[in-house]
This record gives sequence, C-alpha cells and structure tokens, in this order.
Amino acid sequence: MEFKRNVSLLMDFYELTMSNGYFVNEMNDKIAVFDLFYRNNPDDAAYSIFCGLEDIINYVENLHFDKDDIDYLRSLKIFDEKFLEYLSNFKFRGDIYSFEEGSIIYPNEPLITVVGPLIDCQLLETAFLAIVNHETLIATKANRIVLASKGRAVSDFGARRAHNIDSALYGAKASYIGGVNSTATTLAGELFNIPVSGTMAHSWVMAFENEYDAFLSYAKLYPTNSILLIDTYDVLHSGIKNAIKVAKDYLIPNGYRLKGVRIDSGDLAYLSKKCRKILDEAGLKDAIIVASNSLDEYKIGSLIDQGAKLDSFGVGENLITSKSAPVFGGVYKLVGIYNNKGELEPKIKISETLEKITNPSFKDAYRVYNKEGRAIADLLTLHGEELQQPLKVIDPNKPWKELVFEDFEIKNLRKEIYRKGQLVYKVPTIEERRNFVRHQINNTLWDEEKRFVMPHIHYLDFSENLYNLKIKLIQDNRYGK
Amino acid sequence: MEFKRNVSLLMDFYELTMSNGYFVNEMNDKIAVFDLFYRNNPDDAAYSIFCGLEDIINYVENLHFDKDDIDYLRSLKIFDEKFLEYLSNFKFRGDIYSFEEGSIIYPNEPLITVVGPLIDCQLLETAFLAIVNHETLIATKANRIVLASKGRAVSDFGARRAHNIDSALYGAKASYIGGVNSTATTLAGELFNIPVSGTMAHSWVMAFENEYDAFLSYAKLYPTNSILLIDTYDVLHSGIKNAIKVAKDYLIPNGYRLKGVRIDSGDLAYLSKKCRKILDEAGLKDAIIVASNSLDEYKIGSLIDQGAKLDSFGVGENLITSKSAPVFGGVYKLVGIYNNKGELEPKIKISETLEKITNPSFKDAYRVYNKEGRAIADLLTLHGEELQQPLKVIDPNKPWKELVFEDFEIKNLRKEIYRKGQLVYKVPTIEERRNFVRHQINNTLWDEEKRFVMPHIHYLDFSENLYNLKIKLIQDNRYGK
Repeated sequence: MEFKRNVSLLMDFYELTMSNGYFVNEMNDKIAVFDLFYRNNPDDAAYSIFCGLEDIINYVENLHFDKDDIDYLRSLKIFDEKFLEYLSNFKFRGDIYSFEEGSIIYPNEPLITVVGPLIDCQLLETAFLAIVNHETLIATKANRIVLASKGRAVSDFGARRAHNIDSALYGAKASYIGGVNSTATTLAGELFNIPVSGTMAHSWVMAFENEYDAFLSYAKLYPTNSILLIDTYDVLHSGIKNAIKVAKDYLIPNGYRLKGVRIDSGDLAYLSKKCRKILDEAGLKDAIIVASNSLDEYKIGSLIDQGAKLDSFGVGENLITSKSAPVFGGVYKLVGIYNNKGELEPKIKISETLEKITNPSFKDAYRVYNKEGRAIADLLTLHGEELQQPLKVIDPNKPWKELVFEDFEIKNLRKEIYRKGQLVYKVPTIEERRNFVRHQINNTLWDEEKRFVMPHIHYLDFSENLYNLKIKLIQDNRYGK
Repeated sequence: MEFKRNVSLLMDFYELTMSNGYFVNEMNDKIAVFDLFYRNNPDDAAYSIFCGLEDIINYVENLHFDKDDIDYLRSLKIFDEKFLEYLSNFKFRGDIYSFEEGSIIYPNEPLITVVGPLIDCQLLETAFLAIVNHETLIATKANRIVLASKGRAVSDFGARRAHNIDSALYGAKASYIGGVNSTATTLAGELFNIPVSGTMAHSWVMAFENEYDAFLSYAKLYPTNSILLIDTYDVLHSGIKNAIKVAKDYLIPNGYRLKGVRIDSGDLAYLSKKCRKILDEAGLKDAIIVASNSLDEYKIGSLIDQGAKLDSFGVGENLITSKSAPVFGGVYKLVGIYNNKGELEPKIKISETLEKITNPSFKDAYRVYNKEGRAIADLLTLHGEELQQPLKVIDPNKPWKELVFEDFEIKNLRKEIYRKGQLVYKVPTIEERRNFVRHQINNTLWDEEKRFVMPHIHYLDFSENLYNLKIKLIQDNRYGK
C-alpha cells in the first residue's frame, strides 16, 4: 500500500535548537536517560491502558532527515551547517525500554525509557508523546466503554468526529486493542486487520421512495446482515413496522432472519423496550437492537440500569475524541546523564507543585502479585536493583509506614525494545494485544479499581534506594542551583 | 517530500455497503444533493471559523481505489464484483460548493454542498467530516485564544498532546489560519509555511552542571533569540537571577539584549509581576515574559484581568485538542435527489428533536450586511433564487414576524469548487486565509458576537420559498412513510 510518508520532523522546534546546541557544545557524546510517564488518569479512573508502542517503533524505524527536511532547516538560518550534515546522516543509536502495548498502567511509572546520546533522546520527544498520548487515551476510553457494556458488543463509529485522519485510524486501532469488537472505519480494517462493521445511513432510507422499499432492497442485497436503521421517519409508527414487514415479506420466506434494527435518536431506553416487545410479539425474538447517538460509558451504564433492551452499541465522538477527558498528559523528562567516568548522574525537575517533581534516575518498574494472581502494587526501583523476599519498600505518600512484601510474585513490566539503535522486540499481533488487555482486566485487576466513581488507587511503591535518592536530590536542589 | 499516502478508504463501511447497493440497484445515475452542516458552536460560542477546504480538495484529488484496496474489499466477501471493478476506475464526477476557508460560519448553514451521482456523494462523507470537523474545531478555538490575548502573541505548543500526527500537523495549520502567530511543530512549518518558534526545554537546563551555564551556553548560541526558561529549579530565587546575570555577563557586553524569559509553572500572575519588576530594576525593560502551562482563552483572559505582565503565550493541549469542547459536530445529510425528469425532489430527515430536522433541498447561503459593513444576518434560499430589494425573509424561530431587508448589501457565501469532477477553485495562500479571518473579526463581526458568555446569536433567515418547502415536507412526513 502507498502508506509511507516521512513525518520525521514532527518535532517541537526546541528539540532541534537544543540538539544543535548539544552538537555545537560537543555534548552529544553524553549519554542521557529520558522517561516517558504521566501524572493522572483520564476520567478520574484508577488506571489506563498503554498503547502506541507499535507506532513509535514505526516512527523510529523511519526516522531520517531527507533533503527537503535539511533544506527547510537550513532556510531558517539558525542551525550550524555541521549539525545539518550530522542530521542528514542521523540514525537513532540508543536503547529503549517500554511497557508492552495493552498493559494496565499507573501514573508516575516510566512507561518508556530512552537511553542514548542526548540528541537521539531529545529528537524523539514530540512524536513519542503525540502517538502514545493519543493511542493510550483512546484505548483507555474504549476499555471503559466495553466494561460499561457488560458483554454487549461495541463498535467504533467515530471516524467522522475524529481529529483528522490519523486520529480516526489509530483511534480505531487503539479502540480495538482496548476491547471494542469492530470499527466502521474501512481503512483501519484494511491497515490493522480489525473487523469492520456497518449497515446503512439515513441517506439510504431517504434515497428510496419510501422506508419499506429501502429496507426491502437492503435485505435482498445483504440477507445475512440485515440490520435496518429505523429512525429516519418515526421509530414506532414507521421504522419498526417496516422492518418487521420486510422480515415477513422477504427474509423469513427465503430462509433468512431479520438480524436486527438500529435506533440512532430519541429516548433509547423507551424505544428499545417498545421495539423489543414489538419484535418479540412478531416472533422475531432473535433480532437484535443496536443503539447509537452520542453514547459513552456513563450513558451505556445508565441505559443498562434502566433495563433498556439493547444488544449492541455504536459509539462515536465520545470514544474517538475521549470527549469527557480528551487529553492524556504524558510527558518526557530527563532523569539522568552519564558523566565522563560512565557514572549515572541522576536528574530531577523541581516544581512548586509536589506532584510535578520528577522521579530521578534510570529505573525499573515491577508489578507485585498476591498468591491469587491479583496485582497488589507496582514498584519502582533503580535500574538493575536486585529484589529479594521479603522485600522492604516505601510508599512515597506514607514514608513513615513499614511496608514489607512476603510470599509474592513479581514481574518486570518492561521489555527491551531497542538495543544500540537495533530493534530487538517483536510486536505481538493486534489480537494478542487485545487479549492481553482482557486477560489483565479479568484476572489481575481488582474490581475496586474498575469502578468509575472513586476507584481504589493502586499503590506505587519505591525501593529504599530510589526513595532515598529522590529525597536527597530534592534537598540538594532546595534553593535551585 | 515523501508525504503522499492513499487514505481513500477512510470511509465508514456503510458508505461502501450502501454504494454497492446503489450500484447493484442501478440507482447510481441518480443525482443527489448532500449538505455538510453543523448544529451547535463549540464552547457555547456564537460562531465558528470554517477550515479544512484545502485538505478535502487534496482528498478528492487523490481519491482512488488501488489494487490493495480492492483486494481488501473483495476479501470481505460482501461486494458485487462489478461494483469492485467500478470502484477500481472510480473518479469523483460531481459538483462541490463550499464556504471559503477562514469564513465565519453559523449553525445550520450548508458549509459544503455536493451534487453528483449517489455513490460519488456518499463516498466523501467520512473524510470530509473528519477533516472539516477537526480543522474547523481548532481554527475556532485558536481564534478564541487569540481574541482573549488582546494583541499579545500566541504560539501553538500542542503537538505532544495532539490526537496523533495529523492532529498535530493540521491542528497547527488550522491554528495559524485562526490567528495564532507561530507553531512549535517543525513539520507543520515545513509543510504549510507557518512560522516556527521555540527555545529550550527543562532538559536543556538539566543537561548542564547548573542553570547559569545552561543559560550562558544558550545565549552564546542564539544571542538574538535568547528566551530563557526560568522555572526548572525556582523562578524567583534562581531562574530570573541567572537570566539577568547572563544578560549582564554576556549578552549586553556583546551588543545583544536578553530577549526574554519563559515561565512554565507556578502562579503565572504573581510570578510575572515579580519578574517584570526584577527585570525592570535590572534595566531590562525590553525583555519579554512568555507564559505557558495549560493555558486557554479563559485562563489568558483571567491573567490579563489580574494585571499579569505577560507578553506572549504558548498554548498546548487546550488548543490542539480544544479540550473544553473537543468535538465539532458537523454532519453530512442527503437533502435532495433529482428524479427521472431532472426535477429535484427535496428530502428531509425528521427527528424527535426539532433541531435535528434537516433543511431540505439544494440551497444557497448569503450574508446580509448593513451600510457600515457589519453582517446583520445570514440567509438561506433555494438554489438559484433571485433576491430583490426590498427582501422579505422569514426567521424560522419566529415565523410570525414580518422581516424585510432594505438598503442592504448581500454576498453569496459559497464558491464553486468542483464542476463535474474538475477542480475549478484556487485555494488562497495560508496568509490570505489567515488575513480573511482577521478581516471578518475586525470589520464585519459584531462585538456582541465575540463575547464568551451569552454572545448575541446571529440570525439565520430563510427565503419564503425555502421556509414553505420545509413546512410542507414536515407535514407530508408527519407519520413517516
């Protein structure tokens, strides 16, 4: 497919001015460590679903500055010519560690760590954030909607309200990983091997002389996929009646059945109950009712609570833009630089706001499970620290508390993705990533964390070494430098 | 540049199943009329800024189904082979009328009208909506932020929080058309000829032994563009002092000046006043203060009201996602079909909700100006209606009112973009589109419409013919068909 384009320069301009500075100052042999992390879950949730790794790999694999890019940068008359020459031969040389796509994640964990020459690290910032922030946001929202739907099918109908083409495409992909069953976006189906679904719009119904003709024509064309949109004129007085008539006039006599009806406006609780009754009385008990119209996890939950007779949901703008919380606030921060002796000097960003102070140094991230397999806490350590049972840890929000883990299982949450610029990780299939989400939701996550209102906040503990380092650096930087 | 890719299949799947149906039913010679319009302005505003025309033209110009697309569709085992053959030779054959990019627009106006064979019209739906909804949303938000900034410079810092790559790129472009002064997104600068801006991140400051060295090094590198980020450690105890010291130690002795400082955290009102005083006392009255950190039009307005000493704003996630209102709800609806005699049969979509009833038929859109050049109302008519002075019109919300326009100027708001599949419109330069926005805001729009709270709602009147047609169709469809 003609689907390549060079988006290497999707960089904040300061990444280039800084890199030029590192180059001119001969600081580019310095090896730095950057963390990508976030501070708050969207929608006041307890967790998010990490997504975007495949696409940041695609970005790194393609990352290069072609002649047009170099000419453009030169035209700005700010960059050293030797730096531009360096860029024209640039290839990423660093190491990357990352959570796997589909992982349940929590605030302040290093989702991705990049270790490499300062410029190599710096130039990845914007693209990594734009991709991970977007896909994580949508996978997380999709998962909430799927949970609210309690086993009913959910389809992504969002492309038309997406923030342009990539948002529709990668949003569809993230939604599928997050748990929705299909997408209406055909190109996402083609590119990512996601099931596509869709039947008819109001324009189909209006293009015929009358609703009955429109339904009959559709049923003849797609007799095994006859989901008829019944709200173009009037759901109860017209739409449901014509759908049943088509079932009896054509589908049933020809050995088919009415697959279902879709309602896209009006009071979905009321109309679905009425339609269910009418369909059942007509002997069409297996015809499903699909709802769409500005649905989200809250409306779906409420419809189910009201006893709405709905079998499937099409979700549009509230999924594809995560309307109620449209920003995933991932950031990318320097956490250390190796000095001339090869020792890591940890770095910290101090802030007026406590929660904005970064966690310094190159770190590892673990998840701790109890004997039943439920995740009871996550743990950050310095990179390479050995962990022994019993394990003494510190909750940075309650450092006075004595916390010891015994008889636990522990899992390193991150994989090596790049080693010295070489890709050393194979991205699982999209089905594997989707199943991974489902597995964690069903088997390792507490129900108390799945609540939409005041969920249990997962513990993020520190090793003693990491905690002590952070406190020391805060004290060292107390009055700035 | 390598920047082409084939996104033709960015279509809701039902557009393809319906088109297959039109093809199989031999309905594709029917000429249809579709309108793209919206129902509500984001942020309870009075108007929006239309954007996206250039990119829908790019979509139409590229629209084709390559072998991979056809193979994919065939693999779904639902499409007629003759239809797939038809698609593989498909080229858009219709007419398109559109508002120009940068136009002030109001709800329920036909922003774009597509006239052409049913399939040609139907296949454009998703891409047109995804592009126009996104770019209009961001241009509109940008314009609000620019208005709130009262002449101070605004830069787009949003790429990292955008909904993936296109959202960053086309969001930067729409922001510029909407009035911001520059973008930090380098690729948007390269692709769209937008000024790029940016200086340093916290990582620059942290990569040096201390803040002073970081500032000095930057000042030596970019002596004419020395905007120093002063909040890495402590704005007042460290950052502002080191910035002044670098100005006095290096910049001023070498004939330069400190261009300014940037504050990215803390209480921006308080810190900016303190910094202004410290800079002034140090004799650096012309050093500017730039603010960033989750700004939007409300926070900027409040900072200015509080007397914050800020000269320039960097705006990120609240611009690039239009966080407070992240969905622009454009829709694309069938409004008429020509019958065998070549007469237009107007179509209407009835809904339980009055505001969701569509305006039928092929229409023209006009703006009516008073003698001072202010736009006093917009007017929808049937396509081709002649307008004479005095002009009797109907306000559909107050149809009992006698409304006559006299002594007015009137402008047809739409241009012909495509005629029988041929592009007949030249997109103005991005500067021209940006100037067009500014011209309307300054010269034709009422101040009362610019308010963020309870703005004046622009009048959208109907010609008598259009009003009477709509009422008749509602009555005809009263019980469905």
